[in-house]
Amino acid sequence: MFQINDNFQKLPGSYLFSTIAKKVAAYQEANPDKEIIRLGIGDVTQPLAPAIIDALHKAVDEMGNAATFHGYAPDLGYEFLRKAISDNDYKARGCDISADEIFVSDGAKSDSANIQELFSANSRIAVTDPVYPVYVDSNVMAGRTGTYDAQTETWSNVIYMPSTADNGFVPELPKEVPDMIYLCLPNNPTGTTLKKEQLQVWVDYANKNGSVIIFDAAYEAYISESDVPHSIYECNGAKTCAIELRSFSKNAGFTGVRLGFTVVPKELKCGDVSLHAMWARRHGTKFNGAPYIVQRAGEAVYSDAGKAQLKDQVAYYMNNAKTIKTGLAEAGFTVYGGVNAPYIWLKTPDQMTSWEFFDYLLENANVVGTPGSGFGPSGEGYFRLTAFGNYENTVKALERIKAL
Amino acid sequence: MFQINDNFQKLPGSYLFSTIAKKVAAYQEANPDKEIIRLGIGDVTQPLAPAIIDALHKAVDEMGNAATFHGYAPDLGYEFLRKAISDNDYKARGCDISADEIFVSDGAKSDSANIQELFSANSRIAVTDPVYPVYVDSNVMAGRTGTYDAQTETWSNVIYMPSTADNGFVPELPKEVPDMIYLCLPNNPTGTTLKKEQLQVWVDYANKNGSVIIFDAAYEAYISESDVPHSIYECNGAKTCAIELRSFSKNAGFTGVRLGFTVVPKELKCGDVSLHAMWARRHGTKFNGAPYIVQRAGEAVYSDAGKAQLKDQVAYYMNNAKTIKTGLAEAGFTVYGGVNAPYIWLKTPDQMTSWEFFDYLLENANVVGTPGSGFGPSGEGYFRLTAFGNYENTVKALERIKAL
Repeated sequence: MFQINDNFQKLPGSYLFSTIAKKVAAYQEANPDKEIIRLGIGDVTQPLAPAIIDALHKAVDEMGNAATFHGYAPDLGYEFLRKAISDNDYKARGCDISADEIFVSDGAKSDSANIQELFSANSRIAVTDPVYPVYVDSNVMAGRTGTYDAQTETWSNVIYMPSTADNGFVPELPKEVPDMIYLCLPNNPTGTTLKKEQLQVWVDYANKNGSVIIFDAAYEAYISESDVPHSIYECNGAKTCAIELRSFSKNAGFTGVRLGFTVVPKELKCGDVSLHAMWARRHGTKFNGAPYIVQRAGEAVYSDAGKAQLKDQVAYYMNNAKTIKTGLAEAGFTVYGGVNAPYIWLKTPDQMTSWEFFDYLLENANVVGTPGSGFGPSGEGYFRLTAFGNYENTVKALERIKAL
Repeated sequence: MFQINDNFQKLPGSYLFSTIAKKVAAYQEANPDKEIIRLGIGDVTQPLAPAIIDALHKAVDEMGNAATFHGYAPDLGYEFLRKAISDNDYKARGCDISADEIFVSDGAKSDSANIQELFSANSRIAVTDPVYPVYVDSNVMAGRTGTYDAQTETWSNVIYMPSTADNGFVPELPKEVPDMIYLCLPNNPTGTTLKKEQLQVWVDYANKNGSVIIFDAAYEAYISESDVPHSIYECNGAKTCAIELRSFSKNAGFTGVRLGFTVVPKELKCGDVSLHAMWARRHGTKFNGAPYIVQRAGEAVYSDAGKAQLKDQVAYYMNNAKTIKTGLAEAGFTVYGGVNAPYIWLKTPDQMTSWEFFDYLLENANVVGTPGSGFGPSGEGYFRLTAFGNYENTVKALERIKAL
């Protein structure tokens, strides 16, 4: 009889956002007259920018004509997109990342879940706590995380780096040396960023100790302060120790379009083995490229018109962030984030647990947020609201919360 | 110092089609005046059908409007697409597969590579030989295949089921019981199919022995004979032993659009554990849905207009298959396939190895095919040509081959 990968059985509950979706659906079914405002899952609400729509239509037309039809994409992405990324996201910031170090994918979620395949089965990971749950869950499925303690909600073989109000949400370096360090900056969910000299400390630590940093920069477009790096490659020496994950979901509203990329520098090696070559092999064997039309949409993100339109879109969401942060503060909440990130991280009132506050907010304000404990044990007692709603709903949600 | 997943180092050479692409590019660079005809990689050449183009444009317009914008898709795919699949591909054929047993993905290549994650690390796989290389390579990366013997080009822990002219390309049941059996029918590369009673033998074997069949039906649209099942669920008992992989690449020309799906029946269990629940968890944690616009394109495949247009497209390619098969036979080649599949499988002439014939054909006819040995050791001495070129090039390629 065949046997399953029993690491899956170790996972407690379902994926965080699936659980939230089910809870919300059940509430809506029981209360069909209630108008629910979703500030939970981090999904965008604004339509794709006109420059992107134009690029999509043009690419669709190409697919309808034999002379301009595109079949299988190059394994690692089209050169036109990889070059636009290299030029705009890296070279323009003084980072020496070439087009052939960029691997185009169907999104940062897939990449952040798949990147662990490059590492040995007994690798030990470190994560900031709280953090995006995919990093830990994908390693659970691969059998690296040891046993789960339901009491502390921690895994025995994961190094947690708590980020709470006590340390200003800035994690300390791990006490034991990990093989892989997941950093998400600007942070999901806390909204924290590190300044360049703070991030340099992590790069130096990784190079000194032989760790790899998996740097998730999905929210870099929301950075408003000038001394915060948008890429880890702004730090010296990062090319020998860091992989960077990027998304088009939040800077360009591609959550339903699906496009992302991962940078694996050619200098990143384990002995003689290039991780760039390994990821290329993984991409070629287990993935078949992002859609041509979607890659053309990605290219339009870097056009002059696209840049201008998306700057406005980011500003729209950051105005929501300000609305939420100010409104919550006025209502007496203790709030963090929202300056360099589209997330507001708040302390739950009255010693409520994160899930108690989730239910309270859903039932009394019909507002959906995300329980902080879903991002890790140090998220308990916190709650995340996103700035990705539309403005009118964001204002309405805050009015309801203030009226509680 | 971090350690890599050293299973990657066990893989001999690069992924088959990457190797071919590099060889062809090198030849073209050295011979810029030569007009190369590609009948190698299995990529389609005809443009997307008008019904699909219309659906794409309409969906793009929706994405440009806040009221009809779509963000994150449901984890498992949109209901409109899953229902269309269930109704048309399954219920219309008498297979009791419901919409919620269908998992929409970015393509069958990803799914065929990822599905092994559900099984224990020490599972043993069986593959027909020759076969699509992703099945074995993805298991190599996961460490299941033992050691590689460069002499025989086989893995010590893989059960090979040879399919050669000696057995009419119909594999025998494995002599040792595998945990997972990969079947690709109609077969890539040989073009072989099994009749329903032949496939029933495999289903009965799997149920009796506790094996899971991973059934890749990517080419089912090319079946022309009436007694050949399009789905493994046409066989009795398949829902307790089989996972089915499907693609939109070949029936609808989506190689560059990226859409596929996997069926995991709810009855498929290991003890109490549902593989359906496991795959749902995997999808929710490590994947973020296929693009909305692409799922709408998939829906259009099942519209009346889409069906009629794609029937013509399949007929176009099958006319190419006939042209190749007839032409090669006239030129004295021994040829197989091409009746229920878009692939022609031929015996290399003059005892040439598969790669020798690849070079010979590239250099002397400027035609690219795929060396049979790339699909497994029993493919040595064979060669694959695809019917996915355009008609004019297919005719021209055959003229060149005949003139050799």
